[in-house]
Amino acid sequence: MSQHLQKEIAALKEKIIYMGTEVEDRVYRATVSFINRNQEMAQAVLTGDHEIDQLEVNIEEDCLKILALYQPVATDLRFIIAVLKINSDLERVGDLAVGIAEHSSFLIDHPAIPIAFDMTAMMHTVESMLTRSIEALVNLDVQKAHRVRSEDDRVDAMNREIYTLMREELAKDPEHINILLHNLSISRHLERIADHATNIAEDVIYLVSAEIIRHSPEVFED
Amino acid sequence: MSQHLQKEIAALKEKIIYMGTEVEDRVYRATVSFINRNQEMAQAVLTGDHEIDQLEVNIEEDCLKILALYQPVATDLRFIIAVLKINSDLERVGDLAVGIAEHSSFLIDHPAIPIAFDMTAMMHTVESMLTRSIEALVNLDVQKAHRVRSEDDRVDAMNREIYTLMREELAKDPEHINILLHNLSISRHLERIADHATNIAEDVIYLVSAEIIRHSPEVFED
Repeated sequence: MSQHLQKEIAALKEKIIYMGTEVEDRVYRATVSFINRNQEMAQAVLTGDHEIDQLEVNIEEDCLKILALYQPVATDLRFIIAVLKINSDLERVGDLAVGIAEHSSFLIDHPAIPIAFDMTAMMHTVESMLTRSIEALVNLDVQKAHRVRSEDDRVDAMNREIYTLMREELAKDPEHINILLHNLSISRHLERIADHATNIAEDVIYLVSAEIIRHSPEVFED
Repeated sequence: MSQHLQKEIAALKEKIIYMGTEVEDRVYRATVSFINRNQEMAQAVLTGDHEIDQLEVNIEEDCLKILALYQPVATDLRFIIAVLKINSDLERVGDLAVGIAEHSSFLIDHPAIPIAFDMTAMMHTVESMLTRSIEALVNLDVQKAHRVRSEDDRVDAMNREIYTLMREELAKDPEHINILLHNLSISRHLERIADHATNIAEDVIYLVSAEIIRHSPEVFED
């Protein structure tokens, strides 16, 4: 029985890691579509969301099946619960990648205007947070999870900065309201992806240390 | 043992319903602070979020304790998993209420300008979705849960309409960018609360019918 359980858990781990890399790939393509004004890439993200939704439902069903069949305890139980939560965060990141691709698609269809702010740095930071939150899960690496968590404030600050710059652009250039608002939406989506990466990191910490650290201040120094 | 489990489950149900009504109350006060330009009410929401965070952690710990101690199966297991997920949705709704109160607080501190769109209808719809999603949980009322789910599209449409109207206002009145953007943010927050109410409704449907209906089209006719 316990051997079966360990096999199921290993399979579940593979699935959630696969989901993580698929979602990462969506976020990457959504941001590249924006940076390179590549409509084809944006469309690929828009049409590929169904797959992520299906993965989410499968993983959740697996978790429930394992809970019902094996009634795991201790670390195994924590692992299943962490996967349930990470699964739902990843699915929402998938939705946010679709949102970015939608805004990107709109922007590609409209003339490029010179804008005094550059979202590339924020995109790289958020992608790296997501990648490292999944790596932290793969290797049960609590230190890496803490580092992801400590970066969330930086992304919030970037989002606020973009908001301020965007407001100034709007004042100078009210004709391009639409383009500027779509840029602002992308920044907000990125900020929410960083929040989900932080949730995933916190679930990894919980999984390893059996400690719920949500809503507690960060004490990690990098 | 089973009697103990039933007692724990009853206590957990009370806690999640209490959390639901507390979060509802935050959303209500955040929206009333906006409608009545009541700074005191906005501040009350801003300072009260810690309590919701604490409730979330407590409820999650209870779920994990019950899973580990009693290893529930079938309906009991589904109930615990549904509570875990609803708990996390409610906490996020609490955060969104804080977001609305922040934007509202900013708007109260700035002169009221005549705006050609009225957010009151959207606020009422979203509050009613949240209230009914919690009622659906209390009474395990699948029909009510389906009705909540069917209203999400209406809120999305309202959000889009407000976006369009806001863009027109911005074009006419670029001086008030800040005020208009804060209004737009409130509309987006409301739309996200409606999404969470929909998630809660879907978890109630799962709980009662053992069927994951996320990502499936709505077929319910009201």
